[in-house]
Amino acid sequence: MSQPLIGHMDPEFIALMDSIKSRLRPLFGTDNEMTLPLSATGSAGMEACLANLLEAGDKIVIGVAGVFGLRMCEVASRIGARVTKVETDPGTVLLPERMEEAIKETNPHAVAFVHAETSTGALQPVIEIAKAAKKAGSLVILDCVTSLGGLPLRIDDWGIDAAYSGTQKCLSCPPGLSPISFSKEAVMKATERKSKVQSWYLDIGLLAGYYGSGQRVYHHTAPITAIYGLDEGLRQIEKEGLQARIARHADAAQILIEGLQTLGFEPLVDKEHRLPMLTSVKLPERVVNRGEAKVRSALLNDHGIEVGAGLGSLAGKIWRIGLMGENAREASVDRLLSALQKELAKNQ
Amino acid sequence: MSQPLIGHMDPEFIALMDSIKSRLRPLFGTDNEMTLPLSATGSAGMEACLANLLEAGDKIVIGVAGVFGLRMCEVASRIGARVTKVETDPGTVLLPERMEEAIKETNPHAVAFVHAETSTGALQPVIEIAKAAKKAGSLVILDCVTSLGGLPLRIDDWGIDAAYSGTQKCLSCPPGLSPISFSKEAVMKATERKSKVQSWYLDIGLLAGYYGSGQRVYHHTAPITAIYGLDEGLRQIEKEGLQARIARHADAAQILIEGLQTLGFEPLVDKEHRLPMLTSVKLPERVVNRGEAKVRSALLNDHGIEVGAGLGSLAGKIWRIGLMGENAREASVDRLLSALQKELAKNQ
Repeated sequence: MSQPLIGHMDPEFIALMDSIKSRLRPLFGTDNEMTLPLSATGSAGMEACLANLLEAGDKIVIGVAGVFGLRMCEVASRIGARVTKVETDPGTVLLPERMEEAIKETNPHAVAFVHAETSTGALQPVIEIAKAAKKAGSLVILDCVTSLGGLPLRIDDWGIDAAYSGTQKCLSCPPGLSPISFSKEAVMKATERKSKVQSWYLDIGLLAGYYGSGQRVYHHTAPITAIYGLDEGLRQIEKEGLQARIARHADAAQILIEGLQTLGFEPLVDKEHRLPMLTSVKLPERVVNRGEAKVRSALLNDHGIEVGAGLGSLAGKIWRIGLMGENAREASVDRLLSALQKELAKNQ
Repeated sequence: MSQPLIGHMDPEFIALMDSIKSRLRPLFGTDNEMTLPLSATGSAGMEACLANLLEAGDKIVIGVAGVFGLRMCEVASRIGARVTKVETDPGTVLLPERMEEAIKETNPHAVAFVHAETSTGALQPVIEIAKAAKKAGSLVILDCVTSLGGLPLRIDDWGIDAAYSGTQKCLSCPPGLSPISFSKEAVMKATERKSKVQSWYLDIGLLAGYYGSGQRVYHHTAPITAIYGLDEGLRQIEKEGLQARIARHADAAQILIEGLQTLGFEPLVDKEHRLPMLTSVKLPERVVNRGEAKVRSALLNDHGIEVGAGLGSLAGKIWRIGLMGENAREASVDRLLSALQKELAKNQ
């Protein structure tokens, strides 16, 4: 990212963007032509998927298993969509049969949910829900913010029509870009809709003209430096191999959970639904008594380790520990466990 | 920008963001509390201003003096606003009396136009238009993408309610962020409106909670690395002094125009309305005959100099030469003129 800038219409940059588009595809598990990094963060990726695929009045079923599912409802309702919410308790997973029920009842234009719910650490059942949605002829939108690069994704096989992610999770790049992928059906819906996409900035029809294979049509100015960062992030993934990287995430999570359990932390999520890159643990009494925020501050200030707080209804009740991308290694786990041990040994 | 990342809720990052907010204010000429860098490019800044200040059905008068004024109309109409367009020929400036007429006729909620039209190189008359808009009780939106950091801005004195810019022009940072500033009246309109802001990502009420002075409420993940870049860009401006920087832009433009005239290029814009940071010139016959795109390619490939093409109706007719930020120096002008001389001497 310290390379000198080049112009966003420079042939060299166009070639770089073409390369990045094709190298993002295997991560999503897709052949979708419309696969590219949006010039904004993952939250804008969510908005782009919903804004392109929904018109005012359209129906959508949204699976809510945490904060990011809730955010989807808020974004969709601002677009004017009629939202049917299917909720599950934080830390648990959506029941496919409840999603199917809501889909059958409402016959929605789209179904949306989060693959890896970063607010709870639970992996949601994609295949069954997507199948029910496709059977009803709905487009399927999947939040892959935290799963891309750390879990296997097969969005084509699963029947996902629009997926979005962020660069700062398992891709180990700075935040600022949102890789997205749209199926042919999704592109068709976005371009043949009755009303224009509300957001000019996120309109994938315009982005296709800017980043597409033909003569490039000026849209916005691509964030060159961030794209350089993504280029390097992808290079690191290719060097390691995606399968090896995914296995590394799983191994690191296993070591982390075992270590945390010896310190009295218990996992929030059932074993079969735990995310490898985001481990959520319930706090033992001694941590609650000392003030969990204080312990997190000490970890940050004295040990340089950031531990995530609980979000929403889980605030003050859990910690969220990310082992993403470069950080998903035994050495990171050891560093955290030893720092945590030291902190908990103080003033007991 | 090669500094290691820190978390977006890290107290160190919050302090950095506070510093950046206060250091952007003198560049805009404002005391607006709501002054911050949006996590997307300048085009998203345009959308943020329009989307926060307009609801469906609201009326807006937009001055169109080139491509970016036209873009405002497109963005505003996607929001559902009723747009009254006041056009002027590319390369000329908006007549304040024509803007005033349209304002009187339509009594709009907002009036919007571009300060420095990058597609033509013409500086638009802000003070007169803003005065007419304020008299009618309209909010005023000003595009400062190309003017911020290269021309004096006094948005408080001028009565501007919302302004946006980009980092890649006269701030000499990479593209990716959009500094914006909202007056108290604009914040009030955005927060007391009947319908929610269509864009969740660009909602300044939510951004105020995330970047504001109280307890920070998680919104999106700020692009840390890009913010580091802006921090350094502002440091460079402070080191030089804003007045000296503005004078440097004016001086460099003067040298450029004189040099280009000796080569047969004539300025598109009248002397009193020329932008210092973007010089547009009509092409002499010998450049048209050789193919203007070919000459630009040669400048890029053989000399490492990018010259902008004409946009919209000016495509093929003009060149747009930017001297922005670090580039607004006699040395850059000399390098261009000498490269251009060499290219034009070939195959005559």
